[in-house]
Amino acid sequence: MGANNINVVSSLFVFSIMFLSISSAFRTTAGKSRKQYTPCKNLVLFLHDIVYNGENADNATSAIVAAPQGSNLTILAPHNHFGNIVVFDDPVTLDNNLQSEAVGRAQGFYLYDRKNTFTAWLGFSFVFNSTYHKGTINLAGADPALNKTRDISVIGGTGDFFMHRGIATLMTDAVEGDVYFRLRVDINFYECW
Amino acid sequence: MGANNINVVSSLFVFSIMFLSISSAFRTTAGKSRKQYTPCKNLVLFLHDIVYNGENADNATSAIVAAPQGSNLTILAPHNHFGNIVVFDDPVTLDNNLQSEAVGRAQGFYLYDRKNTFTAWLGFSFVFNSTYHKGTINLAGADPALNKTRDISVIGGTGDFFMHRGIATLMTDAVEGDVYFRLRVDINFYECW
Amino acid sequence: MGANNINVVSSLFVFSIMFLSISSAFRTTAGKSRKQYTPCKNLVLFLHDIVYNGENADNATSAIVAAPQGSNLTILAPHNHFGNIVVFDDPVTLDNNLQSEAVGRAQGFYLYDRKNTFTAWLGFSFVFNSTYHKGTINLAGADPALNKTRDISVIGGTGDFFMHRGIATLMTDAVEGDVYFRLRVDINFYECW
Repeated sequence: MGANNINVVSSLFVFSIMFLSISSAFRTTAGKSRKQYTPCKNLVLFLHDIVYNGENADNATSAIVAAPQGSNLTILAPHNHFGNIVVFDDPVTLDNNLQSEAVGRAQGFYLYDRKNTFTAWLGFSFVFNSTYHKGTINLAGADPALNKTRDISVIGGTGDFFMHRGIATLMTDAVEGDVYFRLRVDINFYECW
Repeated sequence: MGANNINVVSSLFVFSIMFLSISSAFRTTAGKSRKQYTPCKNLVLFLHDIVYNGENADNATSAIVAAPQGSNLTILAPHNHFGNIVVFDDPVTLDNNLQSEAVGRAQGFYLYDRKNTFTAWLGFSFVFNSTYHKGTINLAGADPALNKTRDISVIGGTGDFFMHRGIATLMTDAVEGDVYFRLRVDINFYECW
Repeated sequence: MGANNINVVSSLFVFSIMFLSISSAFRTTAGKSRKQYTPCKNLVLFLHDIVYNGENADNATSAIVAAPQGSNLTILAPHNHFGNIVVFDDPVTLDNNLQSEAVGRAQGFYLYDRKNTFTAWLGFSFVFNSTYHKGTINLAGADPALNKTRDISVIGGTGDFFMHRGIATLMTDAVEGDVYFRLRVDINFYECW
C-alpha cells in the first residue's frame, strides 16, 4: 500500500515532467516561440572610435575608405555622411575612460546609409586575447545613431564565446565633433553553449 | 492490483517519453539533424532600389561608393559591375507599388563580386518602426542575381524579431535600366523565440 | 510485491531521466551552457585568391575597391594595408592545387583593419552548385592573418546547408608576394537541422 502510494505520487510528478519535456522538444524542433528571455551571459564594454581627419594619423583608430561621388576621404560626407564607409580598429575598455587598459579591440566597418538622418550599418567583431577573455564576438545590424538605444545582433562567436548568439544594445556615451565618439555596448547572450 | 496495473501502464508510457526526451536532448545538444522545416513566421516584402547616376539625387535611394581601378561612382563598372559597392536605404512596401506606403526601410550594402555574370553579396537590415512591426531583421548572403530565386540567411533580429533566424528568398520583380530594380523578399523564420 | 519492486526500480530510473530532461530543457530554453561540441558535419576546403595588381586582369579573382586617403587601387596600402577593401570571387577546391577542379566559389569581401599588424574582417559565402554540394554557407568574422589558425563564424546556410551554424577555422596555406594567397578552411557545423 505504501509503495503504491509512492508510485501514484511519482506518476503524477512524471506526468508533469513529461509535459515539460514535450513542450521543450516542440519548441526547439518545430521552431515555435521560446519564451524564456533570461540572458545566460552579459558583458558591458566601451568602444572608442577616433576618425582620421587628415591630421591625426598617430591617434586615429579608424579611417574613411569609401565615399559617394563628390566627397573625399578626410571629411565625412554631407547629407549625414550618406555613403561613407569607415574601417576601424578601436580599443575596448571596461569603463568609459579612453586611458583605461584595453581588454580587447573592436574591428570591422560601419557605413552611413541614410541621407536625412544619422544611421549606420555595422559589421564587426570584438576580439579578446587577454586575461579578461579569449575569443571573438561577431556582430551585425542597423544603428539609427540618434536613438538613445539601438539593438544589433550577435551573429556568432568563437573561443570563450563559441557559437554564442544574442543582442548587443548600443548607447552613444560621448561625441566630440566628427573625430571622437564612444559607444557603450551591453551584450546579452541568449544562446551560450 | 489495480494500482499496480496503472503503474505498469504509466511506466510503459514513461519509457516512450524518456525515449523522446533523450532524442530531443541529443538533437539540440549534439548538433544532429532537425527535420522539422515548418516556418514559425512568414513575411512578404518588396524593396525598391533607385541607384544614383549623377542626375537623380532627389529620388535616388542608393549610391555607388566604391569601384575598381578605372571606374567611377556614377556609372556601374564594366564586367558585370565587378567591384562596385553600393550603399542603400530603400523603402519597403507590402506590394509591388513604389508609391504604396512604406512600412519600413531596407538599409545596408551590396557589392558585385563576379566578372562573368551578375552576382552580388548583401549585408543589410529590414528596419521597422510602424504599426506593421517594430524591430529589425538582419540578413547576409550571396545573390546570384540572374537566378529566378536566391536564398540568403536571416542571421538575427531584434524587437518583434528578437533572436529570430531563417531564410529570405529574393526574386527580382522589376528592372529598369541600371537605375531602378525591385526585389520581392519572402522571409521564412524557422527560429522565432 | 514483484510489481511493486519493478515500480520502485522504474521510478528511480524515471527520476534520473527527469533530471536529464529538466537539465536539457533548461539548457535549450534558458540559454544555459550546452556542453556537447561534436560537429554534426565537417568540410575541408581550399580557397585561392589572386589580387588584381594592374597587370593581371585575366587571372585576378579579386580587386581592391576601396583604400584610405593617399593610397590607390592597384597597390595594397601601407601600414599593413589598413583601410583596403577587397572584393573577391575565388575558386574553391578540395585540395591545395589551384589547378584542381573547382567545386564552388568563395564570394564576398575582406577589409584590412589594423595598422600595426595584418588583420582582416571577412564577410563572404561559399557558393556550391555542383555534384559536390548545392547551396551556400555564409560566414563573418575577424581574421588575424598572422596567427596559425583563426576562427570565424558560420552565420547561416541555405540548400544543403539550410539553417546551419558552426565555426570555420582559417589557415594560411601559401602566400606569394601581395598577389596570391591560399587559405585552408576547416568548417565544423554544430547546428545542422
